[in-house]
Amino acid sequence: MARVAYVDGRYSDLPGAVVSVEDRGLQFADSVYEVIALVAGRLVDLDQHLARLVRSRRGLGLPAPMTDAGLRVVLREVVRRNRLRDGLLYLQVTRGQAPRNHAFPAEPRASLMVTLRSWTPFPSSLASGVAVVSCNDLRWQRCDLKTTGLLPNVLAKQRAQEAGAFECWMVKGGVVTEGASSNAWIVRDGSVHTHPLSHDVLGGITREVLLELAAANDIEILEEPFHPTDVRSAEEAFLTSTSSFVVPVISIDGNEIGDGIPGPVTRRLRELYRDHVYGPTG
Amino acid sequence: MARVAYVDGRYSDLPGAVVSVEDRGLQFADSVYEVIALVAGRLVDLDQHLARLVRSRRGLGLPAPMTDAGLRVVLREVVRRNRLRDGLLYLQVTRGQAPRNHAFPAEPRASLMVTLRSWTPFPSSLASGVAVVSCNDLRWQRCDLKTTGLLPNVLAKQRAQEAGAFECWMVKGGVVTEGASSNAWIVRDGSVHTHPLSHDVLGGITREVLLELAAANDIEILEEPFHPTDVRSAEEAFLTSTSSFVVPVISIDGNEIGDGIPGPVTRRLRELYRDHVYGPTG
Repeated sequence: MARVAYVDGRYSDLPGAVVSVEDRGLQFADSVYEVIALVAGRLVDLDQHLARLVRSRRGLGLPAPMTDAGLRVVLREVVRRNRLRDGLLYLQVTRGQAPRNHAFPAEPRASLMVTLRSWTPFPSSLASGVAVVSCNDLRWQRCDLKTTGLLPNVLAKQRAQEAGAFECWMVKGGVVTEGASSNAWIVRDGSVHTHPLSHDVLGGITREVLLELAAANDIEILEEPFHPTDVRSAEEAFLTSTSSFVVPVISIDGNEIGDGIPGPVTRRLRELYRDHVYGPTG
Repeated sequence: MARVAYVDGRYSDLPGAVVSVEDRGLQFADSVYEVIALVAGRLVDLDQHLARLVRSRRGLGLPAPMTDAGLRVVLREVVRRNRLRDGLLYLQVTRGQAPRNHAFPAEPRASLMVTLRSWTPFPSSLASGVAVVSCNDLRWQRCDLKTTGLLPNVLAKQRAQEAGAFECWMVKGGVVTEGASSNAWIVRDGSVHTHPLSHDVLGGITREVLLELAAANDIEILEEPFHPTDVRSAEEAFLTSTSSFVVPVISIDGNEIGDGIPGPVTRRLRELYRDHVYGPTG
């Protein structure tokens, strides 16, 4: 079926979903975005994603493209028109179209674009664990804002792919910050570790919800940075993201982690997230 | 007159110049660009700009959208159709349209977009000098590549504008790297200083040509980093860019530089560049 997208008030098939060459998202990466999982017809953690969108916008002085209620209507309508039950919804807010000039336009009008594509949650291919590689974190100093300035992430992910790995874990100042499109976690001495929130990491929604799920289930998580060497000697490792939820990491840079298979803490957290996504009756 | 733009094989008026919402330039800032001055019907330093475009592309493994000869035909045609004598030509090469996924598409097809707008070279408003402010350099670790990941530059320029200044000079590790969209220079003990080429600065074409012009005219330029305090105590300061050539800087963060008026070395270099742009008969 043809994919339906939304751009600034108009629903169209994907080929008709276009923006001006003078959109500031294209010319300056002057834009923010969210990816939201659609599972069994429901947008997972929607409120948290929309709250983060507001934080990203405000961090850049970027106006809202519409009211929160209006935005929810558009997202629902994109889901409805695409007739998908499971998918990945992508939404991007840019500082709109304006003659090219670095400084903000005098009266910026934000643009909103939304797409949805088919996708399978919890694919069996990820359950058995994935490999990661490490690389230098080349990104800017405000990684806490979810902007489309993603070129360093693209290069990191490409490096992972060329090494036959699923993800690249980025290292800055001697510690692992996060993956190119995921948060990084290890299990060490029985407790779970992940980088604390700071300007160096994006506060992942899956990360945020998993912290709550862990707390509710008496699983200790320490928001403390760890070193690449800690990963190699960890009992377990995993990554979290909107599009993969909780995925076991079984090797880094070719070195097996723990027994080289998904560990019990990772499997437990993955199950907790699955229950969270599908609901208690799932 | 309506502006004419070019996108992937098609010339159109500006409102018709659009790209897909799934263009990687829009979703990932996975693209590079050039701005080239059109003065009296001639694209200034065209060869150098196209050579840098190739360097930026290769640094990102980004394929060419067409041959060099084909690209020159498109640029000339955009100039011709816009019937402008003086203008700023903007060209952007993205890794094209593809379903959203960080890693490179298996067979990327680069997209090319070109616009041109009216503009006045050497406006009298800049001859008397401009103010700059300093700010932290928040950018990534590969500023030598001319990518559209320009959000930190946008924020810096906006900060300058809000402070009533023309430009923001960015400071990293205690030294001035460059401006948000220009290179930074000071005159100290009679010689000119600018940050050496490295991953921390973009090798400006105006910078490159000015170094040659200075050498040919026995003006000493030292490619050495300098500190913000050096700027305040400098005899003169100036900035260079494609869209402003050589512009005197007469204050930083509200502190007058030298006598607070354009100095003799700056004026001489500005004249040399004017001669370079207009030719010896200009």
